[in-house]
Amino acid sequence: MKLKLKKNAYGKNAVNLSKIIRHPTYHEFRQISVNVSLQGDFETAHTLGDNSKILPTDTQKNTVYALAQAHFVDSIENFGLYLANYFITNNPQVTQATVDIVEHPYRRMTFDGEPHHHAYIGGGSENHTTTIIQTGNHIAITSGIKDLLILKTTDSGFEGYIKDQFTTLKETADRILATQCEATWTYTTQELDFTVAFAKIRETLLKTFAHHKSLSVQQTLLAMGSAVLEENEAVSEISLIMPNKHHIPFNLEQFGLDNKNEIFIATDEPYGYITGTVTREQDSED
Amino acid sequence: MKLKLKKNAYGKNAVNLSKIIRHPTYHEFRQISVNVSLQGDFETAHTLGDNSKILPTDTQKNTVYALAQAHFVDSIENFGLYLANYFITNNPQVTQATVDIVEHPYRRMTFDGEPHHHAYIGGGSENHTTTIIQTGNHIAITSGIKDLLILKTTDSGFEGYIKDQFTTLKETADRILATQCEATWTYTTQELDFTVAFAKIRETLLKTFAHHKSLSVQQTLLAMGSAVLEENEAVSEISLIMPNKHHIPFNLEQFGLDNKNEIFIATDEPYGYITGTVTREQDSED
Amino acid sequence: MKLKLKKNAYGKNAVNLSKIIRHPTYHEFRQISVNVSLQGDFETAHTLGDNSKILPTDTQKNTVYALAQAHFVDSIENFGLYLANYFITNNPQVTQATVDIVEHPYRRMTFDGEPHHHAYIGGGSENHTTTIIQTGNHIAITSGIKDLLILKTTDSGFEGYIKDQFTTLKETADRILATQCEATWTYTTQELDFTVAFAKIRETLLKTFAHHKSLSVQQTLLAMGSAVLEENEAVSEISLIMPNKHHIPFNLEQFGLDNKNEIFIATDEPYGYITGTVTREQDSED
Amino acid sequence: MKLKLKKNAYGKNAVNLSKIIRHPTYHEFRQISVNVSLQGDFETAHTLGDNSKILPTDTQKNTVYALAQAHFVDSIENFGLYLANYFITNNPQVTQATVDIVEHPYRRMTFDGEPHHHAYIGGGSENHTTTIIQTGNHIAITSGIKDLLILKTTDSGFEGYIKDQFTTLKETADRILATQCEATWTYTTQELDFTVAFAKIRETLLKTFAHHKSLSVQQTLLAMGSAVLEENEAVSEISLIMPNKHHIPFNLEQFGLDNKNEIFIATDEPYGYITGTVTREQDSED
Repeated sequence: MKLKLKKNAYGKNAVNLSKIIRHPTYHEFRQISVNVSLQGDFETAHTLGDNSKILPTDTQKNTVYALAQAHFVDSIENFGLYLANYFITNNPQVTQATVDIVEHPYRRMTFDGEPHHHAYIGGGSENHTTTIIQTGNHIAITSGIKDLLILKTTDSGFEGYIKDQFTTLKETADRILATQCEATWTYTTQELDFTVAFAKIRETLLKTFAHHKSLSVQQTLLAMGSAVLEENEAVSEISLIMPNKHHIPFNLEQFGLDNKNEIFIATDEPYGYITGTVTREQDSED
Repeated sequence: MKLKLKKNAYGKNAVNLSKIIRHPTYHEFRQISVNVSLQGDFETAHTLGDNSKILPTDTQKNTVYALAQAHFVDSIENFGLYLANYFITNNPQVTQATVDIVEHPYRRMTFDGEPHHHAYIGGGSENHTTTIIQTGNHIAITSGIKDLLILKTTDSGFEGYIKDQFTTLKETADRILATQCEATWTYTTQELDFTVAFAKIRETLLKTFAHHKSLSVQQTLLAMGSAVLEENEAVSEISLIMPNKHHIPFNLEQFGLDNKNEIFIATDEPYGYITGTVTREQDSED
Repeated sequence: MKLKLKKNAYGKNAVNLSKIIRHPTYHEFRQISVNVSLQGDFETAHTLGDNSKILPTDTQKNTVYALAQAHFVDSIENFGLYLANYFITNNPQVTQATVDIVEHPYRRMTFDGEPHHHAYIGGGSENHTTTIIQTGNHIAITSGIKDLLILKTTDSGFEGYIKDQFTTLKETADRILATQCEATWTYTTQELDFTVAFAKIRETLLKTFAHHKSLSVQQTLLAMGSAVLEENEAVSEISLIMPNKHHIPFNLEQFGLDNKNEIFIATDEPYGYITGTVTREQDSED
Repeated sequence: MKLKLKKNAYGKNAVNLSKIIRHPTYHEFRQISVNVSLQGDFETAHTLGDNSKILPTDTQKNTVYALAQAHFVDSIENFGLYLANYFITNNPQVTQATVDIVEHPYRRMTFDGEPHHHAYIGGGSENHTTTIIQTGNHIAITSGIKDLLILKTTDSGFEGYIKDQFTTLKETADRILATQCEATWTYTTQELDFTVAFAKIRETLLKTFAHHKSLSVQQTLLAMGSAVLEENEAVSEISLIMPNKHHIPFNLEQFGLDNKNEIFIATDEPYGYITGTVTREQDSED
């Protein structure tokens, strides 16, 4: 019996970095968390403890901070592209570099309609993400949004499902639909204003969710994914994770009261977990 | 040697409740988490296991849901006041009822400048809180704001402090000031529009933080607390907790680069922890 | 109207420190998290931004690491006592120093009955705590245990409680009792082997919980607190927080099955929250 | 342009279940969290909102509780196998059923060397996991251990790595090695006492970690994975995730003290992240 090392990777996670970009009229504040992961010719590090091809994760961390000065100047996608290429270019033993960046958005405080010069408010659950995978010269760009907590109080139902011996759920034509949505989509090009593209996709996701007459989470998920693809040529595929954060009508009837879809138990667990990917059909004539 | 039971209390925590309030032109969505805690004549429950004076925490939970229908109609303060009084009035063995409510704010989605009829976005770290303590007929109202993540990129320094054998910190006239602020303040009256009062106090906290030329977190804390008291007669006292979320300049100089206060390590731990209470002077002539 | 600064304090939290103590036959590994908080003459730091009496929290952190070498050699209580006294003695402007230490226990790996020389396993939720408060020459020592997750599958019931219009809970003579217990107790002396004392108190808490025929959480709480006071002269008072982590029998009857107290829904929220303090009676003749 | 739905799945997550198994001499307490995920013919649920082939996640949850009575009697693997097969067998539209189970271990309290009849202590970070994937008649069993916090105070070094312009890390022949290990391995058969197999694999992981002279995390990872495969014929492959929880020597030298590898800063972020899979070589003659 022989054993072998299959897929392996290593890198530094949670490189937490803040940057102030000083514009003429205001200070831009950015906060990101970067993960770097390298694959390549690391066999002897595993088999012999020979680290001669290992770029330490500590050095990877330093590299992120050092390069942020000149190269983190606009979108997280562009900074990720620079970093991935840097690691590939400077380390011949590396065959694949993956850079994940999460941005925690801060927004400028606004007083009397005027955004303040340098004061910010942060703390939203919603994060913006990108994953850049460079394999040799090939580059894949997947961006996304995470922990987007969205909810609608009506225009959502769930009926006509299978009933079996363990069914207790009641059908409803009017329920709260709430989800902590995660979306990730693949860009087909680097020649893009990623900041503009992101804002447009986020708006499409929100708008579709808000206006959809939902017969199931699945149906809303497909509508949201399809709308993004229809409105954005530079996106080839989108995956959505939509946990169903259940709001269960509290049984007021047992106390002689009538719950007209007003009072709900907000639950965390258990939760429905609905996922799906929407893509473009490969046309054989293309 | 004799032992005795001193202070004791019991109740239900984390009663998570959502409510839809249907207005003519839109659906208002509210999400709160309620804690109830009762003190009173519970000696024999402890000494004998005699539960005859115990209102079960499960019943407390049911009570919160049941009363929310008719009585959670505007501010969390008013709902808390109703609940505390309900438990005191209906349970003669209860001498003190404490109701804590945390509200997780949701805001309406807005498209083309128009707020949507029933779609919401949530997920901010910032929460609004109230604690109502009713002892017999006496009522204390303490409201607050929690996990308000605020940051300024300049107008903050820290100099002139003690140096000793363990000092390594460098003085700076220009640093990032960031905090996950918690403020709690005491109202002197129930006759108040708590929603309006809260919004005004929040604005004062933000504005003072943004405009202050900070020589220390302590100085900013006092300025924020003082501003709230000066502008709100109905507030008698305010306490602030301002952890210092350090952003440490990354040492680019070791790589021959110059860090002009641009690139920072964002750290979670350890963190400075600054607290203070500002109150009104009791004037002997008053 | 005049305002004044009331209680205020500042310090460093979450100073995370590991130490290896090399014994002749094995390596002892310790991991602690230290909070330091100072009160004193800090008025002008708040009012004027004058930091001349401020020992920076960064220096407090350095002090903890520097003093750990010579003075963190056995219990967290002794290290805390040293630290609190150090800050008081070396800073005349400080009137009160509070040092909180949480220890995360690691246990030695054991193979074939033999503890390993230097390999450890950690990760339990249970933590050991101490709070030392030195005010001038006066010292208060409060130690404790946190997140002690204990559970019994029987010998626990809850009956005979108040029924009202909102009661739905069913009485039971046999239920699971589970709690994530937090206990804190006050020592009356520094002349104590704190490590031995802690182990004994922990054992008493567990044993009493296990053997008690519980008619309510309150009754078990009092039994646990009383047992600790009865068996430990050096403890003057103990406070217990015992959230009731509910295990709710799943309704199998609706499916024609019989749930003989076998299958439960394990819930996190909402939860009962029971607290109490047991102390020694002050005997006037003593 | 045409769009299509690619991979999609739905199910219920975090079905938290406790069970008491009453043995003649003691009560066995088990606590698990179950995720169910179904794939199959759900196209029209997405495109038309037609739920006629949807088994609601609420019913999935009920099914888990109902079947636990008769079928959760020993290992989580056997319960998972039963559940996956149940969903496949009873739902012709389902092509693949995935059941994840996490078990939170509780251990019996022991007094004077005797395990107690029904009192337990829990709360460890370490969890036991299994993932059963049934696709038609094909079954894949992957079990594992999660959040196993292990640490050694010596026999670990890191030297001879690449130095570049961003290197600041110092080489060391003696450092703390700590990781929150996650291991997952694939079983080749259902005819196994999974409880016994798990205990043996866990012991091998710990023993190899403890005794290894580590030249890098990568080398230790490979040693651990290889040992498991060598000692367990029923395991075909193992993947390990070993984040490097850095303990950084505190610079005492700056204060004129000597840090003989005694005092460390325990950090959470950033952290090294090392992953690898070890498998058996496919022998062409087999």
